[in-house]
Amino acid sequence: MNDTSPQAGSTAGPTACVLVIGNEVLSGRTKDANINYLAEELTKLGIPLVECRVIRDVEAEIIEAVNACRAKYTYVFTTGGIGSTHDDITAKSVAAAFGLDFGTHPEAERILLAHYGDKANTARMRMAMTPAGAHLIDNPVSKAPGFRVENVYVMAGVPVIARAMFDGIKGTLKGGRIMVVQTVSTIGISEGMIGEELRVLQDHHASVDIGSYPFLKFGGFGTNLVVRGADKAQVEAACADIRAMIKAAGGTPLDGETEGEELK
Amino acid sequence: MNDTSPQAGSTAGPTACVLVIGNEVLSGRTKDANINYLAEELTKLGIPLVECRVIRDVEAEIIEAVNACRAKYTYVFTTGGIGSTHDDITAKSVAAAFGLDFGTHPEAERILLAHYGDKANTARMRMAMTPAGAHLIDNPVSKAPGFRVENVYVMAGVPVIARAMFDGIKGTLKGGRIMVVQTVSTIGISEGMIGEELRVLQDHHASVDIGSYPFLKFGGFGTNLVVRGADKAQVEAACADIRAMIKAAGGTPLDGETEGEELK
Repeated sequence: MNDTSPQAGSTAGPTACVLVIGNEVLSGRTKDANINYLAEELTKLGIPLVECRVIRDVEAEIIEAVNACRAKYTYVFTTGGIGSTHDDITAKSVAAAFGLDFGTHPEAERILLAHYGDKANTARMRMAMTPAGAHLIDNPVSKAPGFRVENVYVMAGVPVIARAMFDGIKGTLKGGRIMVVQTVSTIGISEGMIGEELRVLQDHHASVDIGSYPFLKFGGFGTNLVVRGADKAQVEAACADIRAMIKAAGGTPLDGETEGEELK
Repeated sequence: MNDTSPQAGSTAGPTACVLVIGNEVLSGRTKDANINYLAEELTKLGIPLVECRVIRDVEAEIIEAVNACRAKYTYVFTTGGIGSTHDDITAKSVAAAFGLDFGTHPEAERILLAHYGDKANTARMRMAMTPAGAHLIDNPVSKAPGFRVENVYVMAGVPVIARAMFDGIKGTLKGGRIMVVQTVSTIGISEGMIGEELRVLQDHHASVDIGSYPFLKFGGFGTNLVVRGADKAQVEAACADIRAMIKAAGGTPLDGETEGEELK
């Protein structure tokens, strides 16, 4: 969407950034599943996700990204690198980013000792270490907690755990204006056929963002036109004009998203 | 993996960065599929992918990310925002990042006129616009080309087109040392049970990177231990010690990756 829209340029409401920390995503071994989940959840809360970064398990790189992003966004969510092995260096790196001591968190220690009992060992108890003064994030799946320092939320990389952690904290986040989203689609009309008309329409409806997403269906192109805005009446007015534009181009407007093939 | 490994700290070989440009990924509407594909392909070429960023269709943000990353990495690959509609602002933004004029590329114009014939229109012909002096990237799927300026490769966001574009250029990239990767896995031994032994083992085999990835199978935890290094003999030596470590912990070492449940 364009850079003149109120949403894109707005700095009034809360914003979010996701840092995926893990060599395994960058090597292609693991497909990240957390970005999409957090994107959907944050959108529902009215907290636009403005940036994601995928970075390596390298202390200097974690420090740089955490410090750049925590200064820039209301919320930073990290995933990955808080397990029990030598390659889990996120917690220590976040402590360094904040210039805080790194040591055993008494409540985390209690949780892990209660969970592991006589199976507690050095590796597992490393998961009780946080930056000094960190607030724990509950892990109902495998107990070892995440934590928060100021506006940085440090969560596990394993998707089922990351989701459970986010579900536990999302009620504490200060949400923003929730966008109204409506989609008009059409089959047989490609975005190139209506690009100029759509540009005029976007200029006319400057209070909404119109995104154009092509797909393939029945061997031809189709287009999903997604209208996003804070005001329902303005979103609906733009959708009405989009339907008329599609008809004028010889197509049939369909309410809602059309699932395409190949281009997804 | 840790920050003392030769691969993680190395600046000797080529490096890569991927910039995914698109509000639709950040809103959660679209699941990115390009990062994983490019990660796998770059790994095969011996070009480590060091960072990915997902950013909005906002000119100032594209300029900032392109300029930060092109100075830092050997190769920058962007995906998204080069279609025919008003929300496609990547090409113009890349021109601005380089301080280059933005105008019609004669060869791109020829390709699009030949493809569209009398269906060429203003919106479609915008896809012939590039930064001045850009080198085109072939698009065998839908013709509208990508382009390269210096070390920045601008590709489509639609995965089938992004892949075709990358396949066309990958032969021109200067590859690096291709890593040898071997995996030893075990079922029933969680990484927490062997974390300290593994740390000692990693310290002993400092020339390789050992990654530990937990999974769930048959209701219990298992672990994939991925060994990555430039030298095959050293990777195999580390794997031999990992097998011995797993046996000492009462487990059975398995050659290769074990597919787990839930934690993928």
